[in-house]
Parts: sequence; C-alpha cells; structure tokens
Amino acid sequence: MASMASIEPVVGGSVTSPRGFRAGATYCGIKKGGRDLCIIASDLPCTAAGVFTTNRVQAAPVVLTRQRLTNDRAQAVVVNSGCANACTHQRGLTDADEMTRLVAEKLGIAVDDVLVASTGVIGVYLPMEKVRRGVAGIDLTADGGADAALAILTTDTRPKRVAVRTTIGGHAVTLAGMAKGAGMIHPNMATMLSFITTDVTLTPDFARQAIRRAADVSFNAISVDGDTSTNDTLLLLANGAAGNPPIAAHDQTAAEFQAALDSVAVELAKMVVLDGEGATRIFQVDVLGARGDADARRAARAVTTSPLVKTAVHGNDPNWGRILCAVGYSGADVDPERVDLAVGDVCILRDGHLLPFDRQAASNQLRGPDVRLTVHLHLGDGRATAWGCDLSKEYVTINAEYTT
Amino acid sequence: MASMASIEPVVGGSVTSPRGFRAGATYCGIKKGGRDLCIIASDLPCTAAGVFTTNRVQAAPVVLTRQRLTNDRAQAVVVNSGCANACTHQRGLTDADEMTRLVAEKLGIAVDDVLVASTGVIGVYLPMEKVRRGVAGIDLTADGGADAALAILTTDTRPKRVAVRTTIGGHAVTLAGMAKGAGMIHPNMATMLSFITTDVTLTPDFARQAIRRAADVSFNAISVDGDTSTNDTLLLLANGAAGNPPIAAHDQTAAEFQAALDSVAVELAKMVVLDGEGATRIFQVDVLGARGDADARRAARAVTTSPLVKTAVHGNDPNWGRILCAVGYSGADVDPERVDLAVGDVCILRDGHLLPFDRQAASNQLRGPDVRLTVHLHLGDGRATAWGCDLSKEYVTINAEYTT
Repeated sequence: MASMASIEPVVGGSVTSPRGFRAGATYCGIKKGGRDLCIIASDLPCTAAGVFTTNRVQAAPVVLTRQRLTNDRAQAVVVNSGCANACTHQRGLTDADEMTRLVAEKLGIAVDDVLVASTGVIGVYLPMEKVRRGVAGIDLTADGGADAALAILTTDTRPKRVAVRTTIGGHAVTLAGMAKGAGMIHPNMATMLSFITTDVTLTPDFARQAIRRAADVSFNAISVDGDTSTNDTLLLLANGAAGNPPIAAHDQTAAEFQAALDSVAVELAKMVVLDGEGATRIFQVDVLGARGDADARRAARAVTTSPLVKTAVHGNDPNWGRILCAVGYSGADVDPERVDLAVGDVCILRDGHLLPFDRQAASNQLRGPDVRLTVHLHLGDGRATAWGCDLSKEYVTINAEYTT
Repeated sequence: MASMASIEPVVGGSVTSPRGFRAGATYCGIKKGGRDLCIIASDLPCTAAGVFTTNRVQAAPVVLTRQRLTNDRAQAVVVNSGCANACTHQRGLTDADEMTRLVAEKLGIAVDDVLVASTGVIGVYLPMEKVRRGVAGIDLTADGGADAALAILTTDTRPKRVAVRTTIGGHAVTLAGMAKGAGMIHPNMATMLSFITTDVTLTPDFARQAIRRAADVSFNAISVDGDTSTNDTLLLLANGAAGNPPIAAHDQTAAEFQAALDSVAVELAKMVVLDGEGATRIFQVDVLGARGDADARRAARAVTTSPLVKTAVHGNDPNWGRILCAVGYSGADVDPERVDLAVGDVCILRDGHLLPFDRQAASNQLRGPDVRLTVHLHLGDGRATAWGCDLSKEYVTINAEYTT
C-alpha cells in the first residue's frame, strides 16, 4: 500500500468546513432553551449513506430517512432536538415528512433529497407550527456548522464537532462531523446522532461500506451491542466538490478515505464518551489475540462498560482482577492461564500469572489523559479497540477504594 | 393441584432456623473490619445442590465446591469475605481445599462434605494463617445464623437473611437463607453469594432442579445474563430433619417445596436489589404476552437495568417511552403497535397508542414502596418478572427531570 498522506485537524472546523456545505440553526421552542433546529445542506447533490438504530422500536425520522436513502442520494438534513418523534405512529411519519418538505421548498431541492433526524422526549408529537416557523427562520451560511452542532444537543454538556484535511489521490479533501451523545452509562442508551460531511467523491457502494466500517470502529466501540435508542442515526454526505474521481471499494484510495473517515468518527465517539455521566477521563481498551475480531470486540466492550473497571480507573486503582473478570463474562473465549494484561506500560499478568509490578507505577498510568488497558488472550488473531469513561462520585465511595 | 399451605415468615430467622443447623462467625483479619469468616453446619449430612457463575474465569472455591457436589452431598459450608481467592491458580485451589479440611477436622466430618465460598478482592492469596486461627476460633451455635449473615458481606450496607415456615405433606418445615450482593448497577457484576438451608428431605435430582428454578426466578431476575463474577455461588443444603419422605420432582409436594424455596430466593434477591448503588426503592417489571418466557425475561431485564428507566422511577416520572425503548432493544420480539403498558394501576399504552392518562396519578404509582411496571406484548404466552432499583443522585440531575 502506498504511504498515506497525513490527516490534519482543522482548528475550529465543523460540518461546513468541506467545500460546498452550508448550515444554520435556530431556537424554535421545542426545547426549553438553546438552539433546537438545524439544517445542513450541500450546494450539490451528495452520495449519502447511513447507519441506524437496531432497536425494534424505530422513530418516524429513522423510518423516513431509511426510505429516502434507498437511492443513495441526499442534499440536506434537518435535525431537531427536544422531541424524538418516536412512538408517534402515522402522525409522526406525516410530521417527519413535512419537516423534509419544508426544507426542500426552502432550498428549492427535491423532497426525496432531504433527510431528517430527531432526538429528545419519546411519545410526544412534534410542535409543527414551531417547526414551520423555525425552518423559515434559519439562515444557511458557510460558517454555520458550529451553530448546527449546538442545535442537536439534549443532555450533552458541550457540542461535539471535528474536521480534518488530507490528500487523497492528489486531491486536497476535507471531512467533518458533529455528534450528540448523552450523559449515560452506555452512551447510546440515549440517542446518538452524528452527521459527517465531506467534499470527496464516493461511489454509493463504497459510501455505504465506509460508513458502516467507520461506525464499527467508533460509535459501536463505545457501547454495548443492542443497547440502542429509537432514534440513533449516523449519516455520511459526500458532495464531490473536491473533484476527485469517485472512490470505489477496490480503489487504492479507498483505504486513505477510510482512514480519514475513521479518524473523524473515532474523534466524535471519544467526545461522546468523555461527555458521559460524570466522566473525568476516557480510557482505551485494546484486546489482542482473540479467537476472532468479534470475540475481541466483546471482550473490549465488556471492560469499557464494567462499572467496577470504570470506578477503578477513576480511583487510579490498577485493579486487574476486575478487568480479567469483565473479559471472563464478556462471552469471548478466554483461557485464564494464557492471558497477558497491562495497565499502560506496566505489565501485570503474563500467561495468567501475576508479575511483580510496581503498584504506584501502575496507578500512575491511570492518572494521565491517555489511559490504556491492554489484554492479550493468545488464542488467535482477533483484535479490537473500545473506549470507556471513568465513573465518579458516589460510585467511588463504594467501589474505587475497595482494594487500595 | 391441592391447595398449598401458607408460607409464614419467621421473624428474625436465619440459616439456623431450620432444625439441625448451627452456624458461627468470627473476625480473623481478611477484611479491614467486621466479621469475615463463617461456618454453616448441619448435624446430619445434607442433600446439596448449587448454581454457579457462568464466568469463564472461575475462582478456586467455585471449582472446588463444584467438584465436591458431584455426590450431591454436603454437611457444612465455610465462607470468607475480603478475599475472593480468584485468579490464584494452583495455590488458590490448595488454600480452598485447606479451608475445607480445617472445617472437616473441627467438626469431625468428611472433607468431601465441606463446601467453600469466597468473596472480595481478586488476584490475591488467602492469608491462610489468619484463616486457620479463624476457623479454630468459631463457635457454632443454633442461633449463629445472624452472625454468619454478617460475615459474608463486602460492600453491602446491611445483612440479608430470611426464614419461612410452611407445611408440606403434613410435615412442618422451615427454609431459610442469607445472601450478599454489592452496590453495583447490575448486582451480580460483583460477587453474589447465597446459602439456603432447610430441614426438608429432598431427592438429589429434585434438589438440583429446584435450586436452578429458584435461581431463575430470583437472582437471575435481578441481573443481566452473563454479567457474572468469578465467585457467584448459590447453595442449597437440605438435611431432612423434618422427617418427611424425600420429595422427588414428580411428587405432588414438589410444587409446595418449590413455592417455599422460590419465596426465600426471591426475598433475598429483592434485598440484594434494594441494597444496590444508592437505591431508595425497588420496582417490579412484569412482562406478559411475549413469544416465549425467554423473550419475556429479556424484555423484563432490559427494563429493570435501563439507567433511563431507573432514573425515571427515582424521579417519579412515568416516562413510558423509556420503558418501551428498553423493551425495543432487549432482543425480544416486539410489535410496537400491539404493546400495552401500565405504570402501577394506570394504563398508558393500549395497542401501542397513548391513552389519555392522569400524569399525576401515574407519577404517584412510582412513589410507593411497591412499584410495578407491566408490559403486555400480545404476541404469545411468555411471561417473566424482574426486579430493579432506582438510580439516584447525580443521575437524576441529568435524566430524571427530563420530561416533567
């Protein structure tokens, strides 16, 4: 593989950083305060793809957006916060459809090219009069991305946005994204929304494949499979303004795009984790040597979501027993007599046996901003990375100081 | 089926309430303070059966006790808290074996008839000199059950014990139990131990079947499948002192015994839930009309373990959307358009449609000590009950007041 161009952050970047995107937001009164409605639009039609909640109960905007994406095309997204438009039956679908019609008319584009997402309270109808006034009042500008990132938040304490520049096949390109999570233990038990824009040209097949792979290594690595809300939505809009030849899955440039897309998605996912309930730091878990990648993912996620591990991280307690226990109940194939385990750079277990280790040095590895736990199962080639946040406050009094 | 005798609580009862059981506890220095070692013993050999952790990493006492139970017989159990004797390899097995030998010698019984359980820190060796002195110093008495219940606690805030009397086939019998849980979100992510004694005579086959069934409707209904610690152990010791003919699975009296055993196990499991992290009340979720009992269990447990539901209960917020969302991601088969949902006596959804309901009345249903949520899926005959506790404090500020 050719060496890849570096991926550079765009300071202050947002979904309007890629060429040809505009955005705008407003407060229309769905939430108690703060911006609650936004539009992201492209000057050109985009190749579009999405990943959606696996919940059996799917909100109206999810149902509608999935339908709209069957032609792999979109040109705008409208998003509201404060009302999830979920469990709203036929009226919810009618309201979601009207949201897209309002935006299509405002922008002079086809209604089929407008997607919609919602987050907030379940089981109440959208206040459509407010939405109508809101859509009418939104100004779309080339620096409106930061404002849009504010309009999708609910219990989040801060906006989450990122943009990067890189070169793909000699073409300078930009990718950007915004996300919302929620202050919960498993971040996506409340709605997770994320919208990624880029000026790269993609084939529809590759766009679908790339966004799914990016979801697997990012948002799906900060949660437990299946714990998804009614509204979870991740969308990719690629408008081709960079002028590169369309990237297909088998092209050499595909890996370069995937790396850039993954970096945007991972950065957003980590922001969601760090904005979790009372979190003070994020930790990364790398599982190697699993029977397969699926086993590795199970093990890594079990560690990142274990309340006992999370409190140990918070308390700077290198409690490797809790890590091993989480791996043990994860469902992954494990032979306790073969496990290696390290906290940061400090090796604690080798072949399942405790090494003489400096407890203070191991504890110090948990203090920094870049906490890493590594587990090697020595059963195969499977590997995965997941991220979790620490658990603080009253959990600590019960659990974090239990061994030290 | 003949009408069953009533099951009466024994006030102040403990594992020594059934005839022919003695117990005692001591502080030997494994924990920082409080009793940390106990023995429960029967005057007669018991029919014994157990249910153990499904974790791939199993502590030494679990491995040893499973072996000892292959003959379905036991006469004593020794339990320590403060050290889990898990991830301790061969030395851990040797130490667990020595614990049982010390007790066998003290009581003059066969070492094969002594079981062992441990809870506490993982990955450290038992301080065997302290254990030897501890076992030697324990006095076993017919009212020692209350003391024993204290010696198995770790992060628990209070002991958990219960005893009941009933009549089975004309014989007055007693069943009793004690348990420990932990202050965690999923109670059995930290070790769950429980020991149930009875003077009923059981066949070994029925004992094994009965304790497994009791576990399913009690301890397994307060946790998420698979999230089990290295040490989880539930043991049943039946010494036959009541003089009834041995109860086999096909006997008419089997259902009477099962009902009494279930009531003891459920009571203990509810105590474990109520002692959960910051819990102020317990709530019961009944799922009816599922495709099967397994689906019903999945749905009920998803609701009881959902942080969003738990905070809603704490905040007296009849947030039915969160309940439906949890059912949706549980993996159970669900048709959102057919779901009935009630909070206490207040029906909120019928066939998936919101009924006009009194929000204050629904909120009041969440205030009492006996909170019940009912979900009817209208897809089959499957049913299950699960229990959860509310989530308090900082979770509330973010989630509980979100809709009201």
